[in-house]
Amino acid sequence: MTRYLDVQHMRQLCARVGIAELLRRIAAAIEADFRRWPDFEKSPRIARYAREGVIELMPVADRSHFGFKYVNGHPGNPRHGLPTVMAFGVLSDMHTGYPLLLSELTLTTALRTAATSALAARLLGRPDARCMAIIGNGAQSDFQALAFMTLLGVRALRLYDIDPAAMRKLADNLCAVCAASGMPPPEIRLCGSAREAAAGADIVTTLTAAQARAEVLTPDMLVPGLHVNAVGGDSPGKTELHRDILKNSKVFVEYLPQTRIEGEIQQIPELNATELWNVLNGTRPGRTSEHDITVFDSVGFALEDFSALRVLFELSSALEIGSQLDLIATPDSPKNLFGLLLHAPSEPSPDKACALTPCM
Amino acid sequence: MTRYLDVQHMRQLCARVGIAELLRRIAAAIEADFRRWPDFEKSPRIARYAREGVIELMPVADRSHFGFKYVNGHPGNPRHGLPTVMAFGVLSDMHTGYPLLLSELTLTTALRTAATSALAARLLGRPDARCMAIIGNGAQSDFQALAFMTLLGVRALRLYDIDPAAMRKLADNLCAVCAASGMPPPEIRLCGSAREAAAGADIVTTLTAAQARAEVLTPDMLVPGLHVNAVGGDSPGKTELHRDILKNSKVFVEYLPQTRIEGEIQQIPELNATELWNVLNGTRPGRTSEHDITVFDSVGFALEDFSALRVLFELSSALEIGSQLDLIATPDSPKNLFGLLLHAPSEPSPDKACALTPCM
Repeated sequence: MTRYLDVQHMRQLCARVGIAELLRRIAAAIEADFRRWPDFEKSPRIARYAREGVIELMPVADRSHFGFKYVNGHPGNPRHGLPTVMAFGVLSDMHTGYPLLLSELTLTTALRTAATSALAARLLGRPDARCMAIIGNGAQSDFQALAFMTLLGVRALRLYDIDPAAMRKLADNLCAVCAASGMPPPEIRLCGSAREAAAGADIVTTLTAAQARAEVLTPDMLVPGLHVNAVGGDSPGKTELHRDILKNSKVFVEYLPQTRIEGEIQQIPELNATELWNVLNGTRPGRTSEHDITVFDSVGFALEDFSALRVLFELSSALEIGSQLDLIATPDSPKNLFGLLLHAPSEPSPDKACALTPCM
Repeated sequence: MTRYLDVQHMRQLCARVGIAELLRRIAAAIEADFRRWPDFEKSPRIARYAREGVIELMPVADRSHFGFKYVNGHPGNPRHGLPTVMAFGVLSDMHTGYPLLLSELTLTTALRTAATSALAARLLGRPDARCMAIIGNGAQSDFQALAFMTLLGVRALRLYDIDPAAMRKLADNLCAVCAASGMPPPEIRLCGSAREAAAGADIVTTLTAAQARAEVLTPDMLVPGLHVNAVGGDSPGKTELHRDILKNSKVFVEYLPQTRIEGEIQQIPELNATELWNVLNGTRPGRTSEHDITVFDSVGFALEDFSALRVLFELSSALEIGSQLDLIATPDSPKNLFGLLLHAPSEPSPDKACALTPCM
């Protein structure tokens, strides 16, 4: 049977393991899998666009396992009471093709995106970074804040969103999770503009639902030494950074063929950009000076979901969280699939009544 | 919530509707969707190969719906007690990205492959075709036989498999389903070779698990007027027909870019082949003479799964078969995804205890 983690199971798992610990484990798995990047067969995700948004399939595999995520992006969905981003995915055994795990990935995507951002920032940002600006305080922002607090030791947050209720939501949630977990609460500043939020920050995270070539950040907002965690723009025509930022910084990506299409760097086709795995392995430089401006042009790559699915499979199996799905027909005799339709399990086979003429 | 059809639900649905009626409905949906071929955004399936087999994702979409199937092909699986081919899939709303249905597709793939074969044969074979040879009597064969009996009125079957137990399985199953449903049983001949089975048949269906460039059929086995339903070979390096058969017949395919890679026609890259939808719409000729040898080079295309998923969604909704999955996290406030992890639904929000410094 296939192990199954629905939304309630995921909530249970987070409560049992703790969100901070889960972020640590997912970040560790992503780092381990990125370090063995050549083991994986990779390709840009497959997208189908409608007027309202996009649906994507994101497969990746090594020799032992196959994983994929189904995810959409429909910015108008909140008007229908649905989230903009919804996801689920599967982890399979490459040796047999059998699906081992089907899991919700809406919550998990937020966790793995934040984990990847924090991993990149730990690699690329200045070691003394303690203050982060978060521009765009929607569904992803709480996860990002927690990941940076947990994995980088960020202690001060400068928030901005065009919607004051979103800012308050983020601040309230962070207070609540710290109170519940005993984590020291961060210093939180609610700001009046993106410019104000960015000023004085060591890291700037952009998380807007840009539906166009937006300029959430412009070059004059940035100072030497900054790390930009550009998460919001993630498909053709959706960007958050003024192109001159890209020209004057060191740009890092997940999987270049996909980011060329979807990321900030779509604005400058010939721009040099470095894949993160090379920096992890030491074969390419990351930040080379405390004055560099580094940009992590995040779009989200299938390998991060694969890593997250591995973690979920191991944890849910060990903690016995989840249920089983009878999703795959496995007849007693593999060549007799039709037998499943012919009779209920306890019925005897009917008498033969056909005209059988053997040739032999 | 997402409607869910597992293996047991599918067995119930088949018992309620009847296998013959289900085949008719799926064939009708496939025909209707093939007739509006330009409405769909199509691409070759995405494959990941291991030594033991392949895992594939098969997406397709029109303006309203997105569908995909996950399917594997691992010929060694019967040794592990697993079927060679296992599948599941999803039908989604393109306007929101919401997954409407998650369904088993192992049984359904066998149904839709057989329905497509019968549809093609009805279009391309001689109208008086009544006798079919089935070479390879494994998991797909029962479905093929039933589809041809139901949709074309085939009344005589000539079976061959290197495994005599498989031949007997197929014969037994057909007798049983006829006895149970009141369908007149076909005349069944168990043969000693592929050549013997093909002799005297109006249609030859090949369904072998060829793991190489096999020659299940050679030109000398065929006579003018024959229709060849070549189903078994469906990936690079796996073919069933001697290449000269292709040169001397009229070849028809589902989606040419994919079949060029996977089908019989991979053997002759420059060969002319016609997509089935053009014949359905009358824009290209099919069989033009009772002496033609026609070949349907079947590999399986995503649109057939889309059509089948539509049928399953409509039937299961109307008959109230299936269950609901809480697969997609839909928080009350779409921007507050994190709230799902923060507290259980009935807990009140903890007191605020953070240092909040508003800029304004």
